[in-house]
Parts: sequence; structure tokens; C-alpha cells
Amino acid sequence: MKNASDKSPNFLYAQSTSVGRADRERLNGHPGKVFWFTGLSGAGKSTLANALEVALHARGFRTYILDGDNVRLGLNKDLGFSDADRSENIRRVAEVSRLMLDAGLVVITAFISPFRRERDMARNLVGPDDFVEVHVDTPLAICEQRDPKGLYRMARAGKLANMTGVDSAYEPPLSPEFVAHAGTQAVEDMVIGLMRCVSKPQGA
Amino acid sequence: MKNASDKSPNFLYAQSTSVGRADRERLNGHPGKVFWFTGLSGAGKSTLANALEVALHARGFRTYILDGDNVRLGLNKDLGFSDADRSENIRRVAEVSRLMLDAGLVVITAFISPFRRERDMARNLVGPDDFVEVHVDTPLAICEQRDPKGLYRMARAGKLANMTGVDSAYEPPLSPEFVAHAGTQAVEDMVIGLMRCVSKPQGA
Repeated sequence: MKNASDKSPNFLYAQSTSVGRADRERLNGHPGKVFWFTGLSGAGKSTLANALEVALHARGFRTYILDGDNVRLGLNKDLGFSDADRSENIRRVAEVSRLMLDAGLVVITAFISPFRRERDMARNLVGPDDFVEVHVDTPLAICEQRDPKGLYRMARAGKLANMTGVDSAYEPPLSPEFVAHAGTQAVEDMVIGLMRCVSKPQGA
Repeated sequence: MKNASDKSPNFLYAQSTSVGRADRERLNGHPGKVFWFTGLSGAGKSTLANALEVALHARGFRTYILDGDNVRLGLNKDLGFSDADRSENIRRVAEVSRLMLDAGLVVITAFISPFRRERDMARNLVGPDDFVEVHVDTPLAICEQRDPKGLYRMARAGKLANMTGVDSAYEPPLSPEFVAHAGTQAVEDMVIGLMRCVSKPQGA
């Protein structure tokens, strides 16, 4: 490829002046990070993700939440809830998280992500050093009592298949970076704990 | 759903305190934007995308480039180069651009994206107000002379199928926001023109 390079100074120029993750982090004043929230439906993942984002944003962190609302209706709208589609759903979320981490953001994902194999895939794609697995560990009985979307009632009535915790397994993390006891702890206390997983922005 | 909401104050809390795009843009001091670069292989899309990112970054803009290097090898590694896969490739890039725009970033995409229908899809997904279609308009003869990846030679030798400009069509934009004559204009001049498409960061 030597000849091609010699004929293509613009190509070399592009290579040598790229803005990288470290440059973006320097501009933001804080490192990027991926918080990967996992837990049953109704465990409180979205609530906690939102509260964490609010706290981080107020302190000058550049943040983004990936959840069913903005992923399942857009990027992953071609996917259903079969095992293969669930796996592809998580793969794409992990890949987008990786890109956003490279963009210098603190990414917070909020998906049930019930299977260890897929969460491990996400960890490896993102890179273990930047990955904070957060088990939102609320007992099934409490999740089912809350049932904010009415999904457990539908599943118990036989009107919804593949409901995690009912007729589909949830594999709890074996060694998550953080366990949020969202059934008993106050949101504020959990957020304070989670904030310790990121470095303070410069000048804050 | 009234009962469910009453029982679920955390859920309401999350809804009312979400950080939105406007908040992120305020923190960054500039609005998000999507620059969609389209043009033949060898037209200079990546070179110009990189030069634009360097210039924007130096002025305090939060930026990210989506290109073959970080998308085809990750998020879209399951896709080939059939018409259907090319379309899905562009759809996903557009959806990720939309998410990154929502995250407050100035996104620059650099893909051949040869078909009008797909670029229009991207424009509609992102939203016309935030979409800057940039035609990197370098004559085929020049692209083929540069041939930085040796693809034209392979295509002409019958060793590569579906090469845009050789045996697959390129549909030039009918009314792009910006035309970059990358065969004759200096990169610096094109960058100056492109910079006019974004608002200056506050305090810069």
C-alpha cells in the first residue's frame, strides 16, 4: 500500500489529526464510563438511571441513557423478544455504548438483560475497565406488586410470554461492581454510592 | 394506570426529572447537529470529516465521527453489501446519529450512502432541522486515480462486485445543504464553509 499512501496525502493527513477519546474527555473534564443496569421489570432501573443522570448532569458530566424508550422504538425496532432477538438487542446496545464511551460520554443503560452471557459480552465489548455492572436487586414479589406497566398481571394471566421472572429466567450477576437494593434503599443513597464509580469533573 | 402510578412514586419522580437534549446542549454550550457526508469511495469524505472534527473540537464543540472503521467492524458487523444490508447499515447509522444528537453531540457520518431514498430516510429519522447533507463531490476519474484502498482496481479487474461508480449507481443529492468540491477545493476552505452550519459555542 506504499504507493497508494504516497499518492494520497489527504488520507495520511486524516489519520494523523483524528480527535480521540482522550481529547474528548479532556474537553469534557471527566472520563467516560458505562453504567450497565440489570434487573427485573419493575425493579427500578429506569428510576435509578434517571436519578443518576440528573445527579451527574448537575455536576457537569456529559451523560446519556439508553433504554427501551429510545432503543426499542428506533435502532432495534426490527427486533422482537425471541432469545436470538434479545441477544441481538443487547449486542447493539453494547456496541452503541462503546461508541458513546469513545465519544467521551457517561452512558447509563437500563435493560432487563437477564442473561449472564450477554452481560459478559457487553462487558467485553465496552472493555472491563470502563464497565460498571449495576444489579438493581429488587425482590420479584416487590416488582410484581409495583407492576408499573401491568406486565406481570398479563404474564400471570397467560397473555404475555417470555416474561422474565415468570416464565423466563433471570440470572443475577455473580460479581457486579454495584448492588442497588432498590426495594429498600432510598434512591438518593443509591445515587451517592453510584457517583463514587466516576471521577469528579475537573473544576467542579 | 392511575392506581399503578399512585403506588409508584419513584416512577413519577423519574419522569419529571429527566435530563433532555436541551439540558445537554446548555451544558455543552452549543447545539447538536448531524453532518451527513455522502460521496464516492476516494472522494475525500473521511479526510474532510476528520478535518471538520479537528476544527470543531478545537473550538469546544463535542463531536463524534461515525464511519466504516467504527461501525462496520462493530455495530454493523453482521451486515454485508447486498442492497438490503446496505440499507440496514444506513438505517442503523441514522438511528445512532439520532441518539447522539439527542446526547447533544455534533455527529459527522462518512459513508458512501449512494441512494437518495436512504439519505432521505436518514434525514427524516434525524429530523430535517438538524440534518446537514454534505455532498463530497469529487469526479469519479479523480477518485479512481486516488484509489486509496485499491478498490477501483479490484472492481475494474472483476474481483469486487457492487462497487459504487463502477457497477453500482451513485445518486447525487438533488439539494444538499453543502457541496464540497473535494477534487479542487482546499480542505481548509471547505472546513470554513462547513463551520458556518453550526452555531458558535457560548464563551468561545
